[in-house]
Amino acid sequence: MSLDAVLDRIDRQLPQALDRLLEFLRIPSISTDSDYDAETRRAAEWLRAALAELGCDAEIRDTPGHPMVTGRTGGPGRAILFYGHYDVQPVDPLVLWHRDPFDPAIEDTGAGRVIRGRGAADDKGQLLTFIEACRAWKDVHGTLPGNIAFLFEGEEESGSPSLVPFLKENADELSRDLALICDTGLYSHDRPGIVTQLRGLLGEEIVITAAAKDLHSGSFGGLAMNPIRVLARILASLHDDRGRVTVPGFYDGVPELSAELRRQWESLGFDGAAFLSGVGLFLPAGERDRTPLEQVWSRPTCEINGIRGGYAGRGFKTVLPAEAAAKVSFRLVGDQDPLAIRDAFRAMVRAMVPADCRVEFHDHGAAPASRMRTDDPAFEAARRALSHEWPQEAAYIGAGGSIPIAGYFQQILNMDSMLIGFGRDDDAIHSPNEKYDVASFHRGTRSWARILDAIA
Amino acid sequence: MSLDAVLDRIDRQLPQALDRLLEFLRIPSISTDSDYDAETRRAAEWLRAALAELGCDAEIRDTPGHPMVTGRTGGPGRAILFYGHYDVQPVDPLVLWHRDPFDPAIEDTGAGRVIRGRGAADDKGQLLTFIEACRAWKDVHGTLPGNIAFLFEGEEESGSPSLVPFLKENADELSRDLALICDTGLYSHDRPGIVTQLRGLLGEEIVITAAAKDLHSGSFGGLAMNPIRVLARILASLHDDRGRVTVPGFYDGVPELSAELRRQWESLGFDGAAFLSGVGLFLPAGERDRTPLEQVWSRPTCEINGIRGGYAGRGFKTVLPAEAAAKVSFRLVGDQDPLAIRDAFRAMVRAMVPADCRVEFHDHGAAPASRMRTDDPAFEAARRALSHEWPQEAAYIGAGGSIPIAGYFQQILNMDSMLIGFGRDDDAIHSPNEKYDVASFHRGTRSWARILDAIA
Repeated sequence: MSLDAVLDRIDRQLPQALDRLLEFLRIPSISTDSDYDAETRRAAEWLRAALAELGCDAEIRDTPGHPMVTGRTGGPGRAILFYGHYDVQPVDPLVLWHRDPFDPAIEDTGAGRVIRGRGAADDKGQLLTFIEACRAWKDVHGTLPGNIAFLFEGEEESGSPSLVPFLKENADELSRDLALICDTGLYSHDRPGIVTQLRGLLGEEIVITAAAKDLHSGSFGGLAMNPIRVLARILASLHDDRGRVTVPGFYDGVPELSAELRRQWESLGFDGAAFLSGVGLFLPAGERDRTPLEQVWSRPTCEINGIRGGYAGRGFKTVLPAEAAAKVSFRLVGDQDPLAIRDAFRAMVRAMVPADCRVEFHDHGAAPASRMRTDDPAFEAARRALSHEWPQEAAYIGAGGSIPIAGYFQQILNMDSMLIGFGRDDDAIHSPNEKYDVASFHRGTRSWARILDAIA
Repeated sequence: MSLDAVLDRIDRQLPQALDRLLEFLRIPSISTDSDYDAETRRAAEWLRAALAELGCDAEIRDTPGHPMVTGRTGGPGRAILFYGHYDVQPVDPLVLWHRDPFDPAIEDTGAGRVIRGRGAADDKGQLLTFIEACRAWKDVHGTLPGNIAFLFEGEEESGSPSLVPFLKENADELSRDLALICDTGLYSHDRPGIVTQLRGLLGEEIVITAAAKDLHSGSFGGLAMNPIRVLARILASLHDDRGRVTVPGFYDGVPELSAELRRQWESLGFDGAAFLSGVGLFLPAGERDRTPLEQVWSRPTCEINGIRGGYAGRGFKTVLPAEAAAKVSFRLVGDQDPLAIRDAFRAMVRAMVPADCRVEFHDHGAAPASRMRTDDPAFEAARRALSHEWPQEAAYIGAGGSIPIAGYFQQILNMDSMLIGFGRDDDAIHSPNEKYDVASFHRGTRSWARILDAIA
């Protein structure tokens, strides 16, 4: 029973695997902040070495931004590409962390053991589940379980500027039968999911400039336009009273759920009130006429991710600022066209800026939504393999987060992706005190061994 | 001619007076930031020493916040209290300064020599004009020109929390015939003004909290309320389409200009377009049916002085923040009641916060507007004295900025204030690269010698 030997090896090597994860997490690979460029590269080097240990032909591939890490084994069987990202989110507000985000540790909590640190869940811990499954397989069998290639990106948390050019330039090498991606979550603690539809993401930054310099609000207040006032009007106009996004044409291409998927989702018994109460809220903030699960999985959204202007420090400063800025993102579904929405959004904003003020836009990425063709038998094989590992049967699910890579794989490489991950809703990814359950890491590694056995 | 000797002494001692000002400006007395508490106290010590050199009985008077500095000479004549403040505004954004704000220097510009540095105009340079006038008088005559007392505050830029209690506790000592205040500007480069009406100031900070922690906008976006969205709606609702402030009851107690004052102001030929074009704007942003001069002098306003929320640094972070905050100030006129407006504002905000979000308010001061009784003959005597020093005749003017001290002097000490200052519109107070013209400093010092000769 070769699979059993691999699973047994994974169980016995768990402490060593966790040590390797902690070492990886100590590298502060914050891709969006150029102060961390050298560390981000160090994370790429770390991964290259890990792939070399698997017997891969592993390389660092430079791009205009952070490098890609690739690796290949030859071998027979279905040609698989595994994708993950080695960069992490910024850590502010640092004051809310109860330990240094880059001094990770295994912590015993009331709900079990967790790996605490930035990137534990997103995505270093997740991508290592696959590498550790491969490592155990190689330890037992001397080779990897098939024809596997790897692609690791270092710009996933900063809009992936180098990704599309890299995929296009290396399409022959990277286009394979199927992609495996580990950057999503469990449906619930006991039930894994294979994500078959993903929202896209459009990221925009608006900078409004009024006066040529900061002004004293006593001397100029009431007469000179305040750019925060302009910005507040723009941002307040992005949703109507029913929670719908007001950008003209925004809902073009937004599909209704199929009857079949609606039935499947209803059977999941998603409890929107419990989901919200977990973070201290109770009122769904999205479209009034949509269920909570639709609001996070299948409906498009608009969020303001950051805002700045004037003096926001301690005390008070009666300044009338020269500039105010906000970062706005849209989650997209179905056939919504990110570039058409960008144009409509920018036109809407421009129309609200007074003639003596200026607006600049900064592009932070535009990726469409994607849906997978689950009639490939590998999907059902993987779903059965997952169901053997976990207490409850694996489900096909949606995902609110955007994983643009799956869309790019479809468009550029004509390759579907199987998105399987082991994160939990309380992992606090992108937030202070991010964690990944040791159980997620352990069972996740075992899950990949089962899936590879079934499909590779 | 004793006045001429004093004026001559001021002219000859200008280099030494400027050196003293530069020394004073090197002390970073930012009162709103507690990191600078020791420096703020050092500025108080510096002033105490300066008053001692004038022969005053000078003291540092501790308060729960930054200390007051007081000084007294006895002597015959009208009992005058001179007021100024030794604290300064924060300096951010520091990157926009072309020199260290606390390494001041005299710079030659195309428009004449200026003193560059934080506090040069607001208010260290201005208060020193009075001290230097007294110094020259004492150098020539051996004593100050009358019965003069001094009060210097170190919390003017941070809401003056200790001021009212201090005035009440020391009302007998501080209540005198007339106050002189040097914290305002010239009407134009050639025409000085005596401010006879001042807007009041209400400062409020709103902190909106939604979820218990920052969330991933992919997992929760669309379902969980975003506090920046709540805040933007609130801020966007503060003005209507005609530029009026929408807080209920806001315009209660706002007087119309008297026919006489309207005539005087019209005769000043204020050019709103030129005033705005000086800072790169051209559209008056206030109430549509009011003149530009009314918008800055006699109409109440609402400004957003600062805003923060989510990730506003480099790059992009798809965070759904837990908290967003804004600082809002209201300039008040006539008989507007700051406390009633605070209540109405807070009620209006509370009504716009969803039931599962919270709002906190922080109080940053509440001072009513004030108007002076110009039938005191000292006003006309001072106006004539000023008119002798400057190319154009001095005018009674309004001021958009709030100088709450004048209102407190009226209410607590039953004492009117004569507000005379020599700042220019382009001094960039509260902004990067603040300056004070050497001509303002020099002529200002001479002006006080003339005024003291006329009224003390």
